[in-house]
Amino acid sequence: MEQKKQRAAQWFEELRDIICAEFEKIESEDVNNTAPKGRFERKAWQRTDEHNPTGDTNGGGGEISLMYGRVFEKVGVNISTVHGYFSPEFRKQIPGGEESDGQFWASGISLVAHMKNPHVPAVHMNTRMIVTSQHWFGGGMDLTPALPKTEDTNAWHEANKACCERHGDVVDYQDLKDWCARYFFLPHRGEERGIGGTFYDQLNTGDWEKDFAFTQDVGRTFIDSFPKIVRRNMFEAYTEEDHAKLLEKRGRYVEFNLLHDRGTKFGLMTGGNTEGILMSMPPEATWLKKPEGMMPVNDFLKKAA
Amino acid sequence: MEQKKQRAAQWFEELRDIICAEFEKIESEDVNNTAPKGRFERKAWQRTDEHNPTGDTNGGGGEISLMYGRVFEKVGVNISTVHGYFSPEFRKQIPGGEESDGQFWASGISLVAHMKNPHVPAVHMNTRMIVTSQHWFGGGMDLTPALPKTEDTNAWHEANKACCERHGDVVDYQDLKDWCARYFFLPHRGEERGIGGTFYDQLNTGDWEKDFAFTQDVGRTFIDSFPKIVRRNMFEAYTEEDHAKLLEKRGRYVEFNLLHDRGTKFGLMTGGNTEGILMSMPPEATWLKKPEGMMPVNDFLKKAA
Repeated sequence: MEQKKQRAAQWFEELRDIICAEFEKIESEDVNNTAPKGRFERKAWQRTDEHNPTGDTNGGGGEISLMYGRVFEKVGVNISTVHGYFSPEFRKQIPGGEESDGQFWASGISLVAHMKNPHVPAVHMNTRMIVTSQHWFGGGMDLTPALPKTEDTNAWHEANKACCERHGDVVDYQDLKDWCARYFFLPHRGEERGIGGTFYDQLNTGDWEKDFAFTQDVGRTFIDSFPKIVRRNMFEAYTEEDHAKLLEKRGRYVEFNLLHDRGTKFGLMTGGNTEGILMSMPPEATWLKKPEGMMPVNDFLKKAA
Repeated sequence: MEQKKQRAAQWFEELRDIICAEFEKIESEDVNNTAPKGRFERKAWQRTDEHNPTGDTNGGGGEISLMYGRVFEKVGVNISTVHGYFSPEFRKQIPGGEESDGQFWASGISLVAHMKNPHVPAVHMNTRMIVTSQHWFGGGMDLTPALPKTEDTNAWHEANKACCERHGDVVDYQDLKDWCARYFFLPHRGEERGIGGTFYDQLNTGDWEKDFAFTQDVGRTFIDSFPKIVRRNMFEAYTEEDHAKLLEKRGRYVEFNLLHDRGTKFGLMTGGNTEGILMSMPPEATWLKKPEGMMPVNDFLKKAA
């Protein structure tokens, strides 16, 4: 298991480097843009473990990579490899948490990109490996266009479908697609956050090599498919109205992440790294849309009378 | 009790009218502003009661008043008078909820104003009366300046203090001030949302007239003190940097309301009026601040080596 942990953690770091390099390359390609090209900045953080019965507080840590660019208005890529003991309450909620006396190890990569051009969708990708007395993988990727385009939507779902089908003995594409649609849903709006993609959790088929190969392929599929969507749309002209739609859509993104996202809520409630967790917040968002049916007060009173 | 309910509901409506008139007056006073003066629009909504054992779905309703102005960038004033039956799970959490078999009545006013000029603080005010097998008042008001000014902070706290002291046999000012500071706190940021004010709940001294008189005075204190702060600051010049601070502060406001505010969470999770509840969202907010200690990746790698 130690070797498996090491290979997973190494892969998440390698994937981070591939993604950051590709995103910086895209920034450089926007040659007619007078704004400076974006470059990632980085920061390390340590996790304090508060529930280790020996009093050891070393809980691992992570690295935040963040870029404010001219194509990527704001993109954060977090990797982390943490370990220690879950709190007594939390270990009950996690598979194998009680059997391991709360001891856990977790490593993963998490990415959110908010794009400058409203024609380029926002994207989220995350993969992780968790170990308690059990072990499993989880993750997925989903796309949030403000101005959905059939070509991009189809390409995104096709790439995810092909990835899942390459690992047909590990996952079922339709399951992961449905799970994604159910998860990224705002019940108070009756809306999905975006157009979905894939979502999986507690993946353990009994063959770690196969599960890991699938998890790696999720990352490779991301880096193969998302940049194509960016390059197809990043030069497209947009209006003020398009930009206003982007900012309203980002308001929904904020609502989902703060009201519903398990990772965000769990992280913030249990003393996680606030900066890393809230890197998913958009650079700018609006709540400007009037509810339907609002009318000048005089008209309202006349209608009521 | 029926008469008391009617008097409370009538007061909340009267207070709404006083507030809307005063805010529109302020909009008109910004005479050198080339933007059009704001005027409130209004909309009524009905609540569907889903837990009435007789199947009656009439659950009361409310009115949303909303203004996008040149002084008040976005201000929402909600009044509502609702009744019906709490869900079996919820009635356990509410005083007197089980004894009334879930039956309740509630009336209140709730207001959030986000101001155009970063020198004018955002404000929140809410008062309500609730009836189950018990009955009580709750509410309060708090101020959120992006650029705090001692004169305003002092005036705000003085007004709240004087109000509480006029009702010394009903409330204790320091209690309400401390409660407010505890409630409007973002643990994941280690920050208060603003500079506080007053917060009270489950107020029932046994003398309904006195409790109601205090609740009315909270509203009158609001309309006496907040407009003065607006008029003192609304003409002050501000820089782009000031405006950027306002937008970051509003990001914190969003975090508090979606992560922590009981009313928002409860309302959204139980099928409340989404439009009314989320009227508290600022017109525009940003998450642009870099975490401290971020550095160019090359410097990061050199430092790590």
